[in-house]
Amino acid sequence: MYGAIEAGGTKFVCAAGYGPGDIPEDCRAVIPTTSPAATLAAVVGFFERITRRYGSLAGIGLAAFGPVDLDTRSPTWGRMLPTPKPGWSDVSLVAPLERFACPITIDTDVSAAALAEARMGAGAGLGSLAYVTVGTGIGGGVFVADRTLKGLLHPEMGHIRVKRDPRDADFAGVCPFHGDCLEGLASGPAVLARWNMRADCLPETHPAREVIGDYLGQLAATVALVVSCERIVFGGGVVSGGRLLPYIRQAASRWLGGYLPIEARAGGFERYITAPGLGDSAGTVGAMLLAMQPALS
Amino acid sequence: MYGAIEAGGTKFVCAAGYGPGDIPEDCRAVIPTTSPAATLAAVVGFFERITRRYGSLAGIGLAAFGPVDLDTRSPTWGRMLPTPKPGWSDVSLVAPLERFACPITIDTDVSAAALAEARMGAGAGLGSLAYVTVGTGIGGGVFVADRTLKGLLHPEMGHIRVKRDPRDADFAGVCPFHGDCLEGLASGPAVLARWNMRADCLPETHPAREVIGDYLGQLAATVALVVSCERIVFGGGVVSGGRLLPYIRQAASRWLGGYLPIEARAGGFERYITAPGLGDSAGTVGAMLLAMQPALS
Repeated sequence: MYGAIEAGGTKFVCAAGYGPGDIPEDCRAVIPTTSPAATLAAVVGFFERITRRYGSLAGIGLAAFGPVDLDTRSPTWGRMLPTPKPGWSDVSLVAPLERFACPITIDTDVSAAALAEARMGAGAGLGSLAYVTVGTGIGGGVFVADRTLKGLLHPEMGHIRVKRDPRDADFAGVCPFHGDCLEGLASGPAVLARWNMRADCLPETHPAREVIGDYLGQLAATVALVVSCERIVFGGGVVSGGRLLPYIRQAASRWLGGYLPIEARAGGFERYITAPGLGDSAGTVGAMLLAMQPALS
Repeated sequence: MYGAIEAGGTKFVCAAGYGPGDIPEDCRAVIPTTSPAATLAAVVGFFERITRRYGSLAGIGLAAFGPVDLDTRSPTWGRMLPTPKPGWSDVSLVAPLERFACPITIDTDVSAAALAEARMGAGAGLGSLAYVTVGTGIGGGVFVADRTLKGLLHPEMGHIRVKRDPRDADFAGVCPFHGDCLEGLASGPAVLARWNMRADCLPETHPAREVIGDYLGQLAATVALVVSCERIVFGGGVVSGGRLLPYIRQAASRWLGGYLPIEARAGGFERYITAPGLGDSAGTVGAMLLAMQPALS
């Protein structure tokens, strides 16, 4: 049996099973993210209960919010890097799991979601895919050549700069690092600060849809130009179950100006920029795939 | 013996040897890029001379200007895609080479250069590296996980959008597709059109250095955020043997705003953003590495 953990900023979703589609009913838990000690103790408690009932784990996959050290050669592998989330900087996510004496594979939540969407979701059968989530923050991961992109760290594409919409020129942005980077302009807190409304509540004709869609479309165009992936999946609360997708596609198409063979090779922007195929479970599915095939990370 | 071809917009550099550091004196040729028929006939003539003298080739590596179809499953593999270069659209670069009855491996010139720099140049020993050249156009390639990035096509990062410098606000840009994308603002022809001077002739104190460095620094920051590579190499005539590098580093640092662990993990911007270690030969070295290890592309 494999263990899967989607470690998020608000909750840790834990599961155990024989595969992403074979998780017994009593093998799921949702643990609120509070202090590291309390949260990680609850995670350990869950897997102790599992192993008492089902026997030892063959592997654990961890899909974590970032930034996190993913370099297996590093002495701080599996530790959170400095993060604005109180108490979590420098915390090791893997140390408490070592008692289960099985391989532990860690990646970012968005890279795990990219892996899951490429294998079993919106990009099944494709060789490359980018996954972007737009919520409290904006994060993205890339699956290509049978693994997820990493190197210096892991992708942090939410912090790229974008060209400002004239209708939005006076808003300073909310990113504590950059002000008006993409996350500072188009994340959930940014939308609330700028438009005084939650993104999923914006009426159909509200200009914010075009403005936010434009910024996210610039990200899509940039990702297509820089990594040349075969599909880009947008999830997260701000995308509101796909209601922003038409705006994102339109903007990406406008910014690319016909330069990439999106029509000829990806079947057009409707297929190139899509909603997740796995819904909210991409992170957990990805974590289980990591547990099953450690080489994927 | 292996064959290497760096197929550029102005010249085709051909070489044959037992490795990148073992090329006999009579095994090099530089062929001007004219019509496809004349150019490719001269390339074939060169390798026919080589095989008469040295015997058959074990493999040919081709580092080509783009856009080119790199998908080995595609019926148009090895063909140029629509390109502004007169006569070259839809031309197959590999068909004339099939007479040599050896494996042919093709990649973009910049991806081959990224491979060469990662293996034997400025990034030797690193697991990931991006190579950017700034000349007639702006192109880039990424080496990661023992191969070069490709998918929908190959990276076309020269066409990302950048935030405009106020000193440069009135210049429309020269990119026929996008106007003021990066290539439209910071390529050789763009610098000439905007500042009425060749990039390598700009005096030390000319404001254009800051403006161009700023745009290229935005590319560096974007690439670092999107692909998380461990080093970025800038080559090409506009970078002028490194004279623009300090401006590029300064701008990248400013745009990143301390967000990535460049100091802690890459030894600072001086090391993170560097000149090529292989000078102008990165493309040819990369082509030979492709010939020797086809799986790299």
